[in-house]
Amino acid sequence: MQSCFSFPILCLFHCSLTIFKHCAFCFHFNIFTCYCFLQIFRIFMRINVRVLFMLLLLGLGIIFYIGASTSPIIVFVFSVCIVSFVLSTYLTKWVLSKDEGPPEMVQISDAIRDGAEGFFRTQYGTISKMAILLGLVILSIYLFRSTTPQQESSGLGRLTTAFVTVASFLLGALCSGIAGYVGMWVSVRANVRVSSAARRSAREALQIAVRAGGFSALVVVGMAVIGIAILYSTFYVWLGVGSLGAMKLTDLPLLLVGYGFGASFVALFAQLGGGIFTKAADVGADLVGKVEQGIPEDDPRNPAVIADLKSMIEVGDNVGDCAARGADLFESIAAEIISAMILGGTMVQRCKIEDPSGFILFPLVVHSFDLVISSVGIFSIRNTRDSGVIGTIEDPMSVLQKGYSVTIILAVITFGLCTRWMLYTEQAPSAWLNFALCGLVGIMMAYVFVWISKYYTDYKHEPVRNLALSSSTGHGTNIIAGISLGLESTALPVLVISVSIISAFWLGQTSGLVDESGNPTGGLFGTAVATMGMLSTAAYVLTMDMFGPIADNAGGIVEMSQQPESVREITDVLDAVGNTTKATTKGFAIGSASLASFLLFSAYMDEISAFSQLPFNQVDIAIPEVFIGGLLGSMLIFLFSAWACSAVGRSAQEVVNEVRRQFIERPGIMDYKEKPDYVRCVSIVAAASLREMIKPGALAIISPVVVGLVFRVLGHYTGQPLLGAKVVAAMLMFATVSGILMALFLNTAGGAWDNAKKYIETGALGGKGSDCHKAAVTGDTVGDPFKDTAGPSIHVLIKMLATITLVMAPVFL
Amino acid sequence: MQSCFSFPILCLFHCSLTIFKHCAFCFHFNIFTCYCFLQIFRIFMRINVRVLFMLLLLGLGIIFYIGASTSPIIVFVFSVCIVSFVLSTYLTKWVLSKDEGPPEMVQISDAIRDGAEGFFRTQYGTISKMAILLGLVILSIYLFRSTTPQQESSGLGRLTTAFVTVASFLLGALCSGIAGYVGMWVSVRANVRVSSAARRSAREALQIAVRAGGFSALVVVGMAVIGIAILYSTFYVWLGVGSLGAMKLTDLPLLLVGYGFGASFVALFAQLGGGIFTKAADVGADLVGKVEQGIPEDDPRNPAVIADLKSMIEVGDNVGDCAARGADLFESIAAEIISAMILGGTMVQRCKIEDPSGFILFPLVVHSFDLVISSVGIFSIRNTRDSGVIGTIEDPMSVLQKGYSVTIILAVITFGLCTRWMLYTEQAPSAWLNFALCGLVGIMMAYVFVWISKYYTDYKHEPVRNLALSSSTGHGTNIIAGISLGLESTALPVLVISVSIISAFWLGQTSGLVDESGNPTGGLFGTAVATMGMLSTAAYVLTMDMFGPIADNAGGIVEMSQQPESVREITDVLDAVGNTTKATTKGFAIGSASLASFLLFSAYMDEISAFSQLPFNQVDIAIPEVFIGGLLGSMLIFLFSAWACSAVGRSAQEVVNEVRRQFIERPGIMDYKEKPDYVRCVSIVAAASLREMIKPGALAIISPVVVGLVFRVLGHYTGQPLLGAKVVAAMLMFATVSGILMALFLNTAGGAWDNAKKYIETGALGGKGSDCHKAAVTGDTVGDPFKDTAGPSIHVLIKMLATITLVMAPVFL
Repeated sequence: MQSCFSFPILCLFHCSLTIFKHCAFCFHFNIFTCYCFLQIFRIFMRINVRVLFMLLLLGLGIIFYIGASTSPIIVFVFSVCIVSFVLSTYLTKWVLSKDEGPPEMVQISDAIRDGAEGFFRTQYGTISKMAILLGLVILSIYLFRSTTPQQESSGLGRLTTAFVTVASFLLGALCSGIAGYVGMWVSVRANVRVSSAARRSAREALQIAVRAGGFSALVVVGMAVIGIAILYSTFYVWLGVGSLGAMKLTDLPLLLVGYGFGASFVALFAQLGGGIFTKAADVGADLVGKVEQGIPEDDPRNPAVIADLKSMIEVGDNVGDCAARGADLFESIAAEIISAMILGGTMVQRCKIEDPSGFILFPLVVHSFDLVISSVGIFSIRNTRDSGVIGTIEDPMSVLQKGYSVTIILAVITFGLCTRWMLYTEQAPSAWLNFALCGLVGIMMAYVFVWISKYYTDYKHEPVRNLALSSSTGHGTNIIAGISLGLESTALPVLVISVSIISAFWLGQTSGLVDESGNPTGGLFGTAVATMGMLSTAAYVLTMDMFGPIADNAGGIVEMSQQPESVREITDVLDAVGNTTKATTKGFAIGSASLASFLLFSAYMDEISAFSQLPFNQVDIAIPEVFIGGLLGSMLIFLFSAWACSAVGRSAQEVVNEVRRQFIERPGIMDYKEKPDYVRCVSIVAAASLREMIKPGALAIISPVVVGLVFRVLGHYTGQPLLGAKVVAAMLMFATVSGILMALFLNTAGGAWDNAKKYIETGALGGKGSDCHKAAVTGDTVGDPFKDTAGPSIHVLIKMLATITLVMAPVFL
Repeated sequence: MQSCFSFPILCLFHCSLTIFKHCAFCFHFNIFTCYCFLQIFRIFMRINVRVLFMLLLLGLGIIFYIGASTSPIIVFVFSVCIVSFVLSTYLTKWVLSKDEGPPEMVQISDAIRDGAEGFFRTQYGTISKMAILLGLVILSIYLFRSTTPQQESSGLGRLTTAFVTVASFLLGALCSGIAGYVGMWVSVRANVRVSSAARRSAREALQIAVRAGGFSALVVVGMAVIGIAILYSTFYVWLGVGSLGAMKLTDLPLLLVGYGFGASFVALFAQLGGGIFTKAADVGADLVGKVEQGIPEDDPRNPAVIADLKSMIEVGDNVGDCAARGADLFESIAAEIISAMILGGTMVQRCKIEDPSGFILFPLVVHSFDLVISSVGIFSIRNTRDSGVIGTIEDPMSVLQKGYSVTIILAVITFGLCTRWMLYTEQAPSAWLNFALCGLVGIMMAYVFVWISKYYTDYKHEPVRNLALSSSTGHGTNIIAGISLGLESTALPVLVISVSIISAFWLGQTSGLVDESGNPTGGLFGTAVATMGMLSTAAYVLTMDMFGPIADNAGGIVEMSQQPESVREITDVLDAVGNTTKATTKGFAIGSASLASFLLFSAYMDEISAFSQLPFNQVDIAIPEVFIGGLLGSMLIFLFSAWACSAVGRSAQEVVNEVRRQFIERPGIMDYKEKPDYVRCVSIVAAASLREMIKPGALAIISPVVVGLVFRVLGHYTGQPLLGAKVVAAMLMFATVSGILMALFLNTAGGAWDNAKKYIETGALGGKGSDCHKAAVTGDTVGDPFKDTAGPSIHVLIKMLATITLVMAPVFL
């Protein structure tokens, strides 16, 4: 009996000794690595854009050699990425060559830029500290985690795996940060140029906004692709993949998961912090006007006066929309590429295909083509005649849509070519055709998703009109109708996702690829290809998305610098279109997130199998513990949404309290004797958003790990192997399902409320100032944290849950 | 090749011939049966209550003989039920012996009674027609469905199974209808007596309300128990269970599923229709005051004037709260008893326990004890001294809580005795102790659940106070805070459910009961026992629940008959307590629903195994189709909630439109020359609620069947056996999880908004009439459909999904 107890204690003692031995060295090494990354990050954020590009080109030149030793496909990918970077340099030069307009515009624009860059610096400072902390945690976990027998046999020891993972994680985080920065960088420079151009011609303004958006889109997508390609080829060369006794090519993608996790980690906090900032300012502005009724709404005596908050909102748009969405889509693409590579590797291994590189590198090639065709789409907008006359506004939506059509047609063609080139195998000669059809399914799904979100959020259609109508009977009915609309809007997308997953899976399954015992194995890879199809126009969609906040900002600058009505008219039209594209690209983002998550948990199961050497291909929710995992996963989404929404409410209330405080402490404000402290309001929102983003973010990161560990222990004592891994898998899947639904609900309800208000502002149902409008404003206020904080954060959350479980997988065993 | 096609066609032809042969006879027989049930239902609804009880006693006498030939346990159950019916007769006599107060009270009360009974008749007329239609559908499905080999061997042919199921279904529907009727019947009679008693003493008023609630609680629980006991013993005697070659006792519970489905079918529509009626009236009343600003709010010229709508709301409370909650809890108990019996039967069969009746009949005995101990709890409230002085109001909550404590203590003791008596088996001598602990887990879960819902909805605690505070900054922040609060409130209950399920499962698993190969098998039965533990105080909880609307009604009557302030004060206190008990019992209902559903889908899997003769003990969501089933299940909850909420919004808007129409068509109303048409407003709400309940109700019934059939076909073509059944199982589980979360969210948010308004009305934050109060009223309006229409409907929905899949199981094979 005594030995029963003493043995584990001895083991524990032995373990702690081992830790200590490792730690002494590792700790310093790791600190050093992290410090380097932090410095690089800081330098990157401050240096001039041209120098940045020069550095990038130099770096690419060095690693080109590595790429060449890996595969000609990698060389192709590198080349396309470099060309697209050159293109984007051209785009940004073109945008920057435009004039900034009169000094009053420049002044406002400078204020917005300073605010945005200031907040970005603080926010990403906090995020980078957390990333380094998490990097340390991952490092220490990996020093204890078991390695797969494949890794062991290829000489990949614990130490190497740990550093490889942490390095990937930090690189992913860094790239995600850069993606966000690029989005914001171009946005704060393009906005004033768009406003200035709006004084001359609607078309020119549109073109500048599109090209600015295109610049960051190309950079974001290109960086995701090239980042993974670099990591892949570096590992390939370093580990001597392919040579005897070394790691197998099909196991290589598993090493990349850290990159995806790093990207989603940064994206989550970027989205949360930015979303809280922008919406706290927005809601705060709404409140100040109402609460402090003693003075008029836009009186300069008000310390958080509307005009000032307006520029805070613009700042928020830049950090919340541009920076966060850049990081979000970067992370989407990265996670999707990595999971598709893992699935491709697994399938190739099962089917014993001779040359696996086609299947593994397929996602990189697809996104290289994405860069090419999206560039064509972006430039296609330039090739129309410019009327040059102020006042003749053509519908910018149709112009953007035309570009999208061009891109989609090209996507269908190139995707077909791409599958023939990469996925042709003699074992199943017609498989490539099936996969091409899978891609078509994905492309169609993207199109339908965009259409559905447009239907539910555009005031040209029934739902938003009914919502506006329900505002005429008061605040309460407006909210009830909006919530019903949002809940209802989940149905069609879910049906589309269902049909897409099943048909892509079926097409993959019938592709003719079979494993050794003759079972068809292409199903999951089919859904992976469909996801790639959906994301094959990602750069163009991101362009449309980035267009939104730039147009919005331009409108704000035009308004604040008190330009004539005709100029406002142009930016108003652009702004309205921007709102629609923002809403529709959210639909696109959630659709791709749902597909990507489905891949990610397949990858997770593959990884668990690889580590545990036990078959792990079932997640049986009839086991009570696994069911409980699902319940906890769904609850996580509800709790996360709650915290994200209440963060906005709380931060907004802080603004109001600050305004009240200033009135009390400085009674002179009311007599114009004292100047109110504008800056404090901004810094309060910034501080609040940084503080409030921690709670939901930490919840998302800690809860799957805790659940996995608790059930691992429980499984150990109740004799259920892999229980922790299974429970986490169920948690992941239920969280994904609930996350898809919740995000759809929040995004659509928020978008619909916003547009119902806009519809009433066009003069319908009593127009601006009517009771109906007041009710609609309430809806809009409620919708703000829904659509810009909680909703988009959930997109990131569900992918981050998937990547964190991939990285932490060995902990659950 | 040709024969490939011709064979199925021949088969089809043969089948249709068979149908036709059966149909000619069955159709007429079925019509006759249905007609009989309808007539019985109608007669039951009209006859005098004493005659009804005489008839019931007579019927019981006859079937007592059958019970005696089944098992002494059944005789015990019968006896307890009859005693509790006698007790409830005493209670109702006691309540009816109280005076009805002055004529103005009687007049109002009569109006409410007429309204409630009128709507009840119309609503249940519609429901009974739908039930008969569905009965026909089930009959025709069962005539095609395969029977289990056990059934075949015991001579249970298709025809018998079909009629047994349809008869159980109709009986379940009938009993559920009666349960609803009883709830409403006593409520519309007790309300005026409570108001009258409030003129004399607070304690007397409380006592009348409690005893009236107690009456319907005893009837509802007693009827659920005796209904199942009668069906069980009838089948037992009729099928000669136990004799050689006949059906095995352990297979008997599977025949009862129709009863559970019938009960939940009626409960769903009762809850939907009643909920829409009451909240459309409530929201409509809110709107009318605001929209028609030309005349004062309570002006008699207004056709839907507040005073009149007030009585409509009271009517609504009776049909929405009393009738629907009666049906809801009836259905909860019935479903839970049946699923526990099925699980008990399965376990007994696996463990080869000699006398299975203890395990199978255990749930009936637990609920018999429930009747006894809850009666003690109800009567314990009487045994305190009555101050007799008007104005000395003691906290009624503490009185009710004291009764609850008595009941809970007795529940713990009797539950322990009960497990020792019923679940002692020589194979595992200490198993009963483990199961007793499972029961304790359930009882504790009930207690914690009630506490959590109280914490989030009572304005004595932080969350509601914060919500009230957020109203001070406007409508928007109030809504954001309420939604966040509701979403957040899901976390603790989910953790409690998780801990309860796992610990009960673990206790069951370690009970020592093992199957032939030595594997522990008691886990699921452990969770079943925990569910029974949770519901072991159901009658008392239902009493507290019924107390709410009775007190609410009494308050309305006192207000409308313009009683002095002191009387109002008493009813206001009772009303406030009623609100809290209503909210907390909702927590109880969702907790028990979540446990019951977990049992029901285990029962579903057992049934599928029995029918298909294939092992079905896994629901693997890693299979894409199964995952899609889950996605669709979660989406179903969102769509259902959307439709339930928007039904209220639309119906309320109809009221407003009718008011507007009357003003235009009868211009004389404004000059007091014409009388507005009050009745039309009421009938419009009634018609609207009956129409609007169909869409969500039909969605709930049709979608699992359609999904099951589609995937059955898909599975057939892709060579995946049992695919339909698996997909439906995933749909069920995901819908349950999402349903639990959504219901918790809706109930808590609604309750919190209501109480935040009440808190402000106590004078906090500016009190009644302030801007803060206006914002809180908006929240309350939004919360109305949340907490009284969508939320409680989801409780029923998740159990109905489980019972419908149980009944339709063979269709998915």
